[in-house]
Amino acid sequence: METILHLLPIPQDQRPAFQAAAPEAEHLFLPTSDRGGAADIPQDWRERVTVLMGFVPPADLKSFPRLKWVQSWNAGVDPYLAPGVLPGHVAVTSAVGAYGPAVSEHMLAMLLAIYKRLPAYRDQQHAHVWQDLGHVWSLSGASVLVGGTGDIGRHFAGLCRAFGAARVVGVHRSDAPVEGFDETYPLSALDELLGQADVVALALPHTPETAGLLSRARLERMKPGAVLLNAGRGSAVDCAALAELLAQGRLLGAGMDVTDPEPLPPEHPLWDAPGALITPHTAGGYNHMELTLERIRALFLDNLRRYTAGQPLRNRMR
Amino acid sequence: METILHLLPIPQDQRPAFQAAAPEAEHLFLPTSDRGGAADIPQDWRERVTVLMGFVPPADLKSFPRLKWVQSWNAGVDPYLAPGVLPGHVAVTSAVGAYGPAVSEHMLAMLLAIYKRLPAYRDQQHAHVWQDLGHVWSLSGASVLVGGTGDIGRHFAGLCRAFGAARVVGVHRSDAPVEGFDETYPLSALDELLGQADVVALALPHTPETAGLLSRARLERMKPGAVLLNAGRGSAVDCAALAELLAQGRLLGAGMDVTDPEPLPPEHPLWDAPGALITPHTAGGYNHMELTLERIRALFLDNLRRYTAGQPLRNRMR
Repeated sequence: METILHLLPIPQDQRPAFQAAAPEAEHLFLPTSDRGGAADIPQDWRERVTVLMGFVPPADLKSFPRLKWVQSWNAGVDPYLAPGVLPGHVAVTSAVGAYGPAVSEHMLAMLLAIYKRLPAYRDQQHAHVWQDLGHVWSLSGASVLVGGTGDIGRHFAGLCRAFGAARVVGVHRSDAPVEGFDETYPLSALDELLGQADVVALALPHTPETAGLLSRARLERMKPGAVLLNAGRGSAVDCAALAELLAQGRLLGAGMDVTDPEPLPPEHPLWDAPGALITPHTAGGYNHMELTLERIRALFLDNLRRYTAGQPLRNRMR
Repeated sequence: METILHLLPIPQDQRPAFQAAAPEAEHLFLPTSDRGGAADIPQDWRERVTVLMGFVPPADLKSFPRLKWVQSWNAGVDPYLAPGVLPGHVAVTSAVGAYGPAVSEHMLAMLLAIYKRLPAYRDQQHAHVWQDLGHVWSLSGASVLVGGTGDIGRHFAGLCRAFGAARVVGVHRSDAPVEGFDETYPLSALDELLGQADVVALALPHTPETAGLLSRARLERMKPGAVLLNAGRGSAVDCAALAELLAQGRLLGAGMDVTDPEPLPPEHPLWDAPGALITPHTAGGYNHMELTLERIRALFLDNLRRYTAGQPLRNRMR
């Protein structure tokens, strides 16, 4: 018999649909309101659970001996794929595709804040100072380079177009064209493309190819006065080098929702680097935006039906 | 003979076009980089000028005895229309229509900053604190009420749609439908509409009809948890009442580029009201964004040709 542990908050009126998707299974509902919350899961539940829908810290997975499938609510499941975290027979599926609106809106919010000097105006507001800080910037006519052409990258590209961006180019791990971009290139074209972009926006997963992608040398290739955004994985950017380039005034700003390391240590120079705008890996919070939750629920329900029917799961990472 | 004083910054390579637009006239170029800068205009220039293209403080206009036409680079020219500021025969034209992208982008930047809690994250950044603040908001599915359906209001409506707003309603001084809005209503419908909007965004000029439009009673009609934006004229909103409503947690936030009074005095409660995000009337700076300058130059050139040809001027306010 299957025992399904639903850590995702599912409203009462939607629970029958999940139960109907796996009618023979035992369904345990424990809505979890923060990312790390496995502490409340009773020991006897852990021993029964075969399907975990949500997230528990990787180290906790050892206390679930009967697991067959983990459906994460995160877009990136790299911590679950690390060696030794899960036995080889356990299926892992991600929630990639659910975060497009939330993360792309957050990226745009950071970019517009930098362009319109809102952080500096916020600081003036605290001091009750009414003072014009002059020139601002616009996406109108801008050239945008998006790292990652999945759900998030495509949503972000669409928003940039709405703001009048002249050229939106994607780089990704394949070399197939993707709708919504003027052009797409493999990651290997990055060196050539970096110097042309007014905005470089990263929404890349953590993989061996993306780790260290924006090295110091690549950051130095960016167009003077450009803006860097990262809302994928912190490992893609050398944050120490970034802090130096910002201090030198080489870039206009950097909107960083993810950093390396993470959490960013209190003594890291990026905190106070001029033009840095830091949010603590919150752009893609599974429970931060109702629309994200709705998309995750729809995916979970579909995948649960597939699991019951013995069909291939969506977003299967292994 | 006409003497035209160009206070607007016009690049050298564009000056021949302006000279050709009024070939018989004397052209004086004095690019001005701040809004109030009339101090550098020599006395003998003031005595000759018949056409002023740019902005001098209203009180300074008295030192231009031969003025026939003032082409302002501002969208709102209410200070020039006040009694006694200019003799009755002087034509006044505004730059309304040049500010749509700049002001609507600024409004969106303020809204997204509030929705994504960027001001609070900025404060945490100063303290080097990495802490998730939880729920965020989205325009996706939202109902937006835009006060003013001119260039700025229409641009703003378009951006809201790109972010997935479900309904964008305009209120304005006429009752003709306007492209880009789901519905438009006269200002008198405001009482009914206020309670339905997740976002109320004002881009209204100062007129007897708009002064005091968002009184305390009307602010109280707003939907709990809604966001107010004002980038039109400060006089449209009772800022003391707004500060109280924010302190009571009735609204999620208020992005205010204009205030009443202006500048906002250091002791005003709006500075520290929870959810208030204040910029010092900078969204529409004529020289803050290259695109705005380009649009103003195009208007100035067109109107100068019209003036020379004796044709009706665009944006004539009197």
